[in-house]
Amino acid sequence: MSTENLTELELLAIDQDLNLADGHPRQSLSRSQREVIERLPELYDLAGRAVFAELERSAHVRYLEAVGQGSAVNSTRRILSAYSSSVVMGVVARCLADSVDRVGLVHPTFDNIPDILRSWNLPLVPLEEEALLAGVARAADGVEPECVFITTPNNPTGTVLGTEQLEAIARRCRERGGLLILDTSFRGFDKRAQYDTYEVLESTEVEYVVIEDTGKLWPTSELKLGILVASENCRLAVEKGMSDVLLSVSPLILMLVSLLSEDAANGGLAALRELIATNRKALRGAFADPGMVEVDADSRVSVARVRVPRSRSADKIWRELAERGLHLLPCGPFHWARRDEGDRYLRVALARDTALIEKAAPIVARALTGCAVPA
Amino acid sequence: MSTENLTELELLAIDQDLNLADGHPRQSLSRSQREVIERLPELYDLAGRAVFAELERSAHVRYLEAVGQGSAVNSTRRILSAYSSSVVMGVVARCLADSVDRVGLVHPTFDNIPDILRSWNLPLVPLEEEALLAGVARAADGVEPECVFITTPNNPTGTVLGTEQLEAIARRCRERGGLLILDTSFRGFDKRAQYDTYEVLESTEVEYVVIEDTGKLWPTSELKLGILVASENCRLAVEKGMSDVLLSVSPLILMLVSLLSEDAANGGLAALRELIATNRKALRGAFADPGMVEVDADSRVSVARVRVPRSRSADKIWRELAERGLHLLPCGPFHWARRDEGDRYLRVALARDTALIEKAAPIVARALTGCAVPA
Repeated sequence: MSTENLTELELLAIDQDLNLADGHPRQSLSRSQREVIERLPELYDLAGRAVFAELERSAHVRYLEAVGQGSAVNSTRRILSAYSSSVVMGVVARCLADSVDRVGLVHPTFDNIPDILRSWNLPLVPLEEEALLAGVARAADGVEPECVFITTPNNPTGTVLGTEQLEAIARRCRERGGLLILDTSFRGFDKRAQYDTYEVLESTEVEYVVIEDTGKLWPTSELKLGILVASENCRLAVEKGMSDVLLSVSPLILMLVSLLSEDAANGGLAALRELIATNRKALRGAFADPGMVEVDADSRVSVARVRVPRSRSADKIWRELAERGLHLLPCGPFHWARRDEGDRYLRVALARDTALIEKAAPIVARALTGCAVPA
Repeated sequence: MSTENLTELELLAIDQDLNLADGHPRQSLSRSQREVIERLPELYDLAGRAVFAELERSAHVRYLEAVGQGSAVNSTRRILSAYSSSVVMGVVARCLADSVDRVGLVHPTFDNIPDILRSWNLPLVPLEEEALLAGVARAADGVEPECVFITTPNNPTGTVLGTEQLEAIARRCRERGGLLILDTSFRGFDKRAQYDTYEVLESTEVEYVVIEDTGKLWPTSELKLGILVASENCRLAVEKGMSDVLLSVSPLILMLVSLLSEDAANGGLAALRELIATNRKALRGAFADPGMVEVDADSRVSVARVRVPRSRSADKIWRELAERGLHLLPCGPFHWARRDEGDRYLRVALARDTALIEKAAPIVARALTGCAVPA
């Protein structure tokens, strides 16, 4: 297995015809999104004349409302923007390094999260999804870390923490004087992740930070926002940390996020969920026995895991496909604490035009099972 | 004096009518820049169809050539892009934390540089500009740090390291097995900083990283690139560090940087230098005796320092002006090792339309000297 991280593997694929590696949105613009892009020169002027604080507030409110988080803007005044969710992640990690001894982190999850936390010398404790789904943020050895970090919906599994599970974890965190960090970058894809998270968190009085992300949804050429929401009582000096990285995000991107959030609320998000469901079906459809390869049957996020038969090596298949120009991700690195547990899976990105998925799916099927259902 | 950092003070000013606080470009677009902005929807499509690696290469080449750094692209293949120069700075600091015991840092300089380095627990040694201008990267107590970090042209002083000074410092760094880091974010404003830095660095075989920045030049609503250039022999694992922060920058921003760099090379940069010179003159012109307040008479960067009379407190004047809606920066925080040395100066941003400088300059003059020359 290579020692590259997942992003480095994604980078290999960026100019390939069959790039199903990264989870960035690469589908075509919808008609109404296209109308927003056509307005960019006008939006540049409007953004230049607007009051920045109002632009930023508007982008936050409209995005959060579009994904069911309307109460966030009433819960706290601590809502900050950055260039991306990874930039926010870096700021949160820096603040955590000053405040906690170790972090309990969901396992598996995208490897840049453990990598960033470790770069700040934060020891990590794996929290299995099974435990979290039981409403318990406790490691296998019984340790309950002071800081709990959960990606929900999770990448690559799509696992979503429900209201009661979140409430139980938040309440326990609060009892122990701990901190709860959520990364909700994929919530736009899953209605089940769009209950009002902030209402639940506030009801428990836990100290929290939530990392929201517009970057997974719209094919806007990487023009996006990472949004950091911290509870009023949260001990982390996130404002200070953020001010070392940037003065402000782009007013033009704030305008774009406002308009695309409005579009999302008015059917855009429903259409996106439809596209992902169609693409998931197209992937499954290429397999003679989808049950053989399907891993996260209930996932709604814009990536899917497929299982490699015991007789084959996932790493070898990944490499063979990459050599033929079809790029997926091997799942070992997601399992940051026990890499071998991920070695039986490959991740397929679904935020693409359906035609691309239909072209790639039979190739994936043949590589995994030796045959594919004719399209 | 407040404990806020400079960026937090800039944030107070962001929606004020007379915002001369931050060094971001807030002048109007030139006619040819406006033509590029008008093409944004078309550029979105072109960027979507282009090969990413070629787009990125083209943006690097055109920007570096526009600021006289043509040889960079032949010197090394290690040229990376990020959302901003501060994001690059964070990656460099992270890599340094794994590699060196302490950093010699130019004094004064913008405070987010020492703040980011310190956040990674890197002890800092101040390197005075006077020593650097003598071609010596040595602290007052004789210490020669393993890693030398220089902002050139410097912010807020505009001090530029010449060819021979740079060569002497680089050569000595190399002899001692050290690392040289340059932040050249302001070089677009000063022809004297546009000699081919990479040719000098390569000739000494020093291990180097240069942080280039398109973000100070063009009023593109914060759409910009930070560019990291590392020598082939540089020990820092910058590629890995960068991959934890991002997969790629925006293809659309790469297109924008390519076109605006072309425009810069074809007269745009000359026009920008002209604007800054005009604004510097307008600022001076408001003072009955400019010599009394002028600090960096030879500076060409897009900020200017003014001196506060001994009888007055710079901090008090800054605060009074801010209360009246005119925002500058107090210079104490730039002097990160001995803050009091900066307490006699205020920094005035010049990358604004001349009308704004003409409106603000008499107010600054009256606040500093009690009178102003009628405009």
